[in-house]
Amino acid sequence: MSAEPVVVPSQVPTHWYNLAADLPEPTPPALHPGTREPLGPQDLAPLFPMALIQQEVSTERWIEIPEPVRDIYRLWRPSPLIRAHRLEKALATPAKIFYKYEGVSPAGSHKPNTAVAQAYYNAAEGTTKLTTETGAGQWGASLSMACALLGLECEVWQVRASYDSKPYRRMQMEVYGGVCHPSPSDLTEAGRAMLAADPDTTGSLGMAISEAVEAAVGDPNAHYALGSVLNHVLLHQSVIGVEALAQLDEIGEGADVVYGCAGGGSNLAGLSFPFLGRNLRDGTSTQVVACEPSACPSLTQGEYRYDFGDVAGLTPLLKMYTLGNDFVPPPIHAGGLRYHGMAPMVSHAVNLGLMTAIAVDQADAFKAGVEFARAEGLIPAPESTHAVAGALARARAATTDETILLGLSGNGVLDLPAYADFL
Amino acid sequence: MSAEPVVVPSQVPTHWYNLAADLPEPTPPALHPGTREPLGPQDLAPLFPMALIQQEVSTERWIEIPEPVRDIYRLWRPSPLIRAHRLEKALATPAKIFYKYEGVSPAGSHKPNTAVAQAYYNAAEGTTKLTTETGAGQWGASLSMACALLGLECEVWQVRASYDSKPYRRMQMEVYGGVCHPSPSDLTEAGRAMLAADPDTTGSLGMAISEAVEAAVGDPNAHYALGSVLNHVLLHQSVIGVEALAQLDEIGEGADVVYGCAGGGSNLAGLSFPFLGRNLRDGTSTQVVACEPSACPSLTQGEYRYDFGDVAGLTPLLKMYTLGNDFVPPPIHAGGLRYHGMAPMVSHAVNLGLMTAIAVDQADAFKAGVEFARAEGLIPAPESTHAVAGALARARAATTDETILLGLSGNGVLDLPAYADFL
Repeated sequence: MSAEPVVVPSQVPTHWYNLAADLPEPTPPALHPGTREPLGPQDLAPLFPMALIQQEVSTERWIEIPEPVRDIYRLWRPSPLIRAHRLEKALATPAKIFYKYEGVSPAGSHKPNTAVAQAYYNAAEGTTKLTTETGAGQWGASLSMACALLGLECEVWQVRASYDSKPYRRMQMEVYGGVCHPSPSDLTEAGRAMLAADPDTTGSLGMAISEAVEAAVGDPNAHYALGSVLNHVLLHQSVIGVEALAQLDEIGEGADVVYGCAGGGSNLAGLSFPFLGRNLRDGTSTQVVACEPSACPSLTQGEYRYDFGDVAGLTPLLKMYTLGNDFVPPPIHAGGLRYHGMAPMVSHAVNLGLMTAIAVDQADAFKAGVEFARAEGLIPAPESTHAVAGALARARAATTDETILLGLSGNGVLDLPAYADFL
Repeated sequence: MSAEPVVVPSQVPTHWYNLAADLPEPTPPALHPGTREPLGPQDLAPLFPMALIQQEVSTERWIEIPEPVRDIYRLWRPSPLIRAHRLEKALATPAKIFYKYEGVSPAGSHKPNTAVAQAYYNAAEGTTKLTTETGAGQWGASLSMACALLGLECEVWQVRASYDSKPYRRMQMEVYGGVCHPSPSDLTEAGRAMLAADPDTTGSLGMAISEAVEAAVGDPNAHYALGSVLNHVLLHQSVIGVEALAQLDEIGEGADVVYGCAGGGSNLAGLSFPFLGRNLRDGTSTQVVACEPSACPSLTQGEYRYDFGDVAGLTPLLKMYTLGNDFVPPPIHAGGLRYHGMAPMVSHAVNLGLMTAIAVDQADAFKAGVEFARAEGLIPAPESTHAVAGALARARAATTDETILLGLSGNGVLDLPAYADFL
């Protein structure tokens, strides 16, 4: 096992952190959708390069970030960790609030952290094209960018509700050279079946995943890329929390509690798992609170059981908190949180009591987002506002100078029409 | 005169740089529109606080940045200086290209550098409201943000062409609590007169300035804020170049040539004046190239003479390169470059031969922007793409490893529909 790497707060970390190394019991494995046996590497080979399949099952604590990935990370990383002085004053709270801001990435969110890594490993193994799904479009834009930088083609199926209401994200994909279709589409068997069943469907991430997986499996030069849920995605996002820990350490601060928004779980895990790992190894007691939308409450209202990741049942079975793979959430503005399930490793951590979850109403989330913007200048993404609402409620109730770490997964610049509904 | 401040590349600079201290002859003064005599401080008092009026005429080389302003700058500053490795490779150029990126600010451009300073000095002198004009909306959004952070009201007149085509910027202002009107409006005498003369006008910065100035003069608690052109605005923007110089020095690089886009001149001046100052003091020979749109070519096609800053003739007379104060540029996408004149200090520097200018066609600018985005990930603002086009042409023609410094004044995330027209 590799020694703990030295993290220099002003530099991009050299290693990702893998919570699997520190969990008291392993995360239940993914099962083959046909045999219901644990998946082997060969089962995933049509979808992912070997390097990512190995990361999916790795129990190494520290996994080195390849230098070409670090070189691209340097375009926006280390991302800022900022003390919210003005917000604290506006709230009249004794608590200290720090926010870790991923909205400085070229795509405007945390998604490029894994998009770049996935594109890199695919390119290294000879893949020439990636397919994927996207909700609000943060992931599709991020993967399109990563593919442009690493010389791959990119084809994206976007949930129709977002495709129609958020044209800027599609244009962003196209500037990067990506191709974007609304989902369900008539380009795949899965899409045609869904359109036949409900011609007016607004789509869902589960449907779009079915289409992107089908397109990848049918093309020998293509692979599929997932923007959240899987272990290797959570691993890549750990760069957020590894940086945040080092940045807090440098100024002599700990985190009493971490608030992150949770859709598929990658942003929350990326920010919080390095803190959970320290709890497990060193006996620290940082709390972690997952903030999900009340319209799609997998952690707070779902069942913890095996379920498919998509609607058509093409993906492996994952043990997770789920609302059912046929659950179609209402078209809320935080498109990135509209997923029926939750990352298995996040679900496992919640089930073990290592973190907790709350559900936040959309109106409360945007109200908190406006309050944050007017105090700190940054306009949080609709997804991020769920974490802001959680952190603000905590700060308002605080009676001590506890330290709250707030994850801002992205900026809301392309979601301003959503804000306009709540002003 | 204060000694040269030490600039630590990882920290926000402590001082702005004022080119007036190093110019071989002074910039011709602004004249009173009635008497045509040089303006005195009392002439500007209805519009600006005394601290800014003093900065307007200061010849001090280094002017301290107040700590509350630095504290807000820390939300996004120092802004990144990045070596464009991938772009160099794509161009197969022996030149080294560095870009200084202002798009990480909460408003997405360089404009908050002066918005925050102006709001601070106004608040310190008891102003409770600021009025302003805006083109594409970068400035209006930036001033709205600064006013929110410093407890001021903000009222913005936006050029109608942009108000109608770029609703996101208005929503951004509103999230910050600002109020935005299309210009010309029926809220001011100037606006009503312009509408009477041409009910279908798409507006211009010159018209919007007339309205915002009138609104400020008519309200004893209000002042006016200008986003470019004036000496104090250029001074505040010098934080860009002060940082860039220190960041290049730290890695042992000089800049053979600096490319910046030029509309009113504040971004170009902010980036380049610290380099020009070093040329003048130390005999270095950094070239500076202003990149303006061929649709609004004040430096390359205008006359160098006294002209009004606005259409109605309410502003002081400024000695500048101008296309005439009644020039209405076509509604190009780079709304921030649609100004009939050019900052007097930039005009003076061009007239003295201290910098040169080129005009760039819109289509060439966007083509360069797409090329940049696909190599470096960041999507430049339409304004910035003019500088990108200039720098790319230079790099393509380079036969040595000269160092090119490119100013990216903002990101183009809210201008994606404009990109879509050129894909």
